[in-house]
Amino acid sequence: MAYNNIVVRLELTGVSFGDAATAIGNAGGDIFSIDVIRSGEASSIRDITIEVRDSQETQVIDSLKAIEGVRIIHVSDRTFLAHIGGKISVESKIPVKNRDDLSRVYTPGVARICSAIHEDASKAYSLTIKRNTVAVVTDGTAVLGLGDIGPYAAAPVMEGKAMLFKQFGGVDAFPICLNTTDTDEIIRTIKAISPIFGGINLEDIGSPRCFEIEKRLMEELDIPVFHDDQHGTAVVVVAGLINALKVVGKRMDQVRVVVNGIGAAGVSICKMLLGAGVKRLVPIDVEGAIVRGGSYSQPMWQWLADQSEVESQQGSLKDLIADADVFIGVSRGGLLSAADIKRMAPQSIVFAMANPNPEITPEEALPYVKVYATGRSDYPNQINNVLVFPGIFRGALDCQARTINEPMKLAAARAIASVVSKSELNEQYIIPSIFNEQVVAKVRHAVIEAAIITGVARRIPPEFR
Amino acid sequence: MAYNNIVVRLELTGVSFGDAATAIGNAGGDIFSIDVIRSGEASSIRDITIEVRDSQETQVIDSLKAIEGVRIIHVSDRTFLAHIGGKISVESKIPVKNRDDLSRVYTPGVARICSAIHEDASKAYSLTIKRNTVAVVTDGTAVLGLGDIGPYAAAPVMEGKAMLFKQFGGVDAFPICLNTTDTDEIIRTIKAISPIFGGINLEDIGSPRCFEIEKRLMEELDIPVFHDDQHGTAVVVVAGLINALKVVGKRMDQVRVVVNGIGAAGVSICKMLLGAGVKRLVPIDVEGAIVRGGSYSQPMWQWLADQSEVESQQGSLKDLIADADVFIGVSRGGLLSAADIKRMAPQSIVFAMANPNPEITPEEALPYVKVYATGRSDYPNQINNVLVFPGIFRGALDCQARTINEPMKLAAARAIASVVSKSELNEQYIIPSIFNEQVVAKVRHAVIEAAIITGVARRIPPEFR
Repeated sequence: MAYNNIVVRLELTGVSFGDAATAIGNAGGDIFSIDVIRSGEASSIRDITIEVRDSQETQVIDSLKAIEGVRIIHVSDRTFLAHIGGKISVESKIPVKNRDDLSRVYTPGVARICSAIHEDASKAYSLTIKRNTVAVVTDGTAVLGLGDIGPYAAAPVMEGKAMLFKQFGGVDAFPICLNTTDTDEIIRTIKAISPIFGGINLEDIGSPRCFEIEKRLMEELDIPVFHDDQHGTAVVVVAGLINALKVVGKRMDQVRVVVNGIGAAGVSICKMLLGAGVKRLVPIDVEGAIVRGGSYSQPMWQWLADQSEVESQQGSLKDLIADADVFIGVSRGGLLSAADIKRMAPQSIVFAMANPNPEITPEEALPYVKVYATGRSDYPNQINNVLVFPGIFRGALDCQARTINEPMKLAAARAIASVVSKSELNEQYIIPSIFNEQVVAKVRHAVIEAAIITGVARRIPPEFR
Repeated sequence: MAYNNIVVRLELTGVSFGDAATAIGNAGGDIFSIDVIRSGEASSIRDITIEVRDSQETQVIDSLKAIEGVRIIHVSDRTFLAHIGGKISVESKIPVKNRDDLSRVYTPGVARICSAIHEDASKAYSLTIKRNTVAVVTDGTAVLGLGDIGPYAAAPVMEGKAMLFKQFGGVDAFPICLNTTDTDEIIRTIKAISPIFGGINLEDIGSPRCFEIEKRLMEELDIPVFHDDQHGTAVVVVAGLINALKVVGKRMDQVRVVVNGIGAAGVSICKMLLGAGVKRLVPIDVEGAIVRGGSYSQPMWQWLADQSEVESQQGSLKDLIADADVFIGVSRGGLLSAADIKRMAPQSIVFAMANPNPEITPEEALPYVKVYATGRSDYPNQINNVLVFPGIFRGALDCQARTINEPMKLAAARAIASVVSKSELNEQYIIPSIFNEQVVAKVRHAVIEAAIITGVARRIPPEFR
């Protein structure tokens, strides 16, 4: 049920506005506001802001067109209007009002700053935007539910990501949309542009190329490289699972966990679950389980097959869901039925994150599961990466971490889980809201601590000394 | 005579502040302000802001250290302080305060925007930051007077450039510092990152690689590519020359023009002079004149040698300066003496732009030349690229020009010249100040007009319809 605000510019000639208003109401639109643009004896022009369901937008427009004396000049909607000219800007932190200012931030004063960095490259962190800036990099091949739409069409998502980095984490983020999908070219390009950045956030790059790209960049750069589609989801899943297990009274090293959909996110979820202490893991993809001892051409699948915690039993999702304590889905809608859920262990936990339709709907699952979560904002327990990337990069930048490693991600997961206090915790509330103001500070702190402990921090912030 | 403001944090124990103040004054420092940080019975801590000549900074500090009871905690200077954490930031244009905002600028609302661009890539100009954003790209090989200092040390200059783009032209500019100096790698990288940008400003890339890089990018990209070190200076030189010729009552197609220093800027100056109508051009480099009919391995020099307006006479600068109406120097200091200048034609024009020392000082030149200009801000008639790049890109972006061609640059030069009105024009004022608020609007207008006339504009702004 998606609502939208549209703004309709009407010219009314010899007809009262009341007629237009009635037509709008009858067609299912709700008038939010009216702005008179021009008013005259013969005719007037008004901008009408109307809230309308997507499915009824055409109806509303047609009903207006049908009125004699009404001419529709233009229809825009608030989403489009929000995007005019892009959603972010680059601003000076210091005004340049006169020659004195100019000589300090540009020639000749800036030369001494350049020389200082030339003598000691680490000063780039204190004297340039490297201190606080992350590149949001995509090649446009795996954007939202739209898939391979290319770098131009991917830009609005990357700009949006940059807004969230700033709004939630205070991190300056700039979108880079690559006009190449070649793995080597992508790696070379990101290496070439890396000096000004304190970190790289990879976004919406298709699997399996994303694994090699992230891995090689992590080896070759001395700044953190983090593919949010892989790890953002994984961190929140582990955070949610930590809390869900408290609700059902089970332990991470006891439960049998089925993960369905072993793409970018699925691989990272499996890795993090193992790092978090899961001893019984069942990764399943379209062709069935990835089994211990199996042989797979995809290197990440082979890695899973080599792990002792991965089960050896072959089978499909329907076969192997029986007696599972936890189901985590990052696959497609409609893969599980209520009957399947009933065969899980008692007090089951289901995270059904397929987008837009979960693997099983809440209506079907809730009678039989104890804790249910999805990626959707209109159900409780939303698993949303926005809980992760702002705080993780805020922490990594503040301690100038050379990487974001597994301990830092696990620390972030535990920090997110800890935002939900003991007294608040219940099956409807296992994950904090993205607007909860404690999240970023707690994630930052935990990530810095883990970075220091694992020796990847190059700066110890004052409160940690 | 470079002044600097330093901030000295002092701890005073059992000594009066007056003693410190006296010492500062005696050593040549001028106290601007005092902030008491902590005040106690035994000791106090104060931040003293002192204006001091670069050459006397050490003297001032030493004189303070010599006082019993004075401990210097820290010395910073305003230039360094201005650079802490970098000088620019990325900001959201719209706050994201709740779920409703989020759904409009991120998922799910943003998907419709992506689809719109996927169907029609030209919509990137209205719906993303491509509308207003330029990359400032360097490889760090020719930075200011410092030379090859690399991408990390070049960052403060690029950030400063971004500040000026915003402050003067309202253009969003982001610094890209490349970790490669290979021509092909640079071209591939810039092509790969180009989708989000409406234009590329190349900066501080060494000659002669900069020519090939700019030329090939212009061929392969459909957005403007402009190397400011080449063309910025050239545009202001032509603007200044247009006005200087009015002062001396000569014509562009009559004068004999010597250009000394045929590197990045010198080549572009020569090209623009020919485009502006100069018929008698004498390009000179270290080994002597580049002559018509000559043979040169450097392709830009060969191009000059093929132009009919270039003179055929061999010789050095000292030989060929005789009877020149105009001398334009983008070379080194101290290459010309008063005696050389005296041998120029009467009512001579000298633009001596070598940095930091002009080819001839004003003291030596002014008794003999009619119009004198340099790149320095402490002499009249400063030839400063800041007059060019904000307005040129403002215009190019507003008409979505696919390139910045010679007619657009010439139009910009004429526009800059026109800011100086007939009644204001004299030998001390041939170029407007960079803070003159008419410059950008006039340059923008002229550039758009030229873009439309030459068929490279993809959008006609409302005021041109």
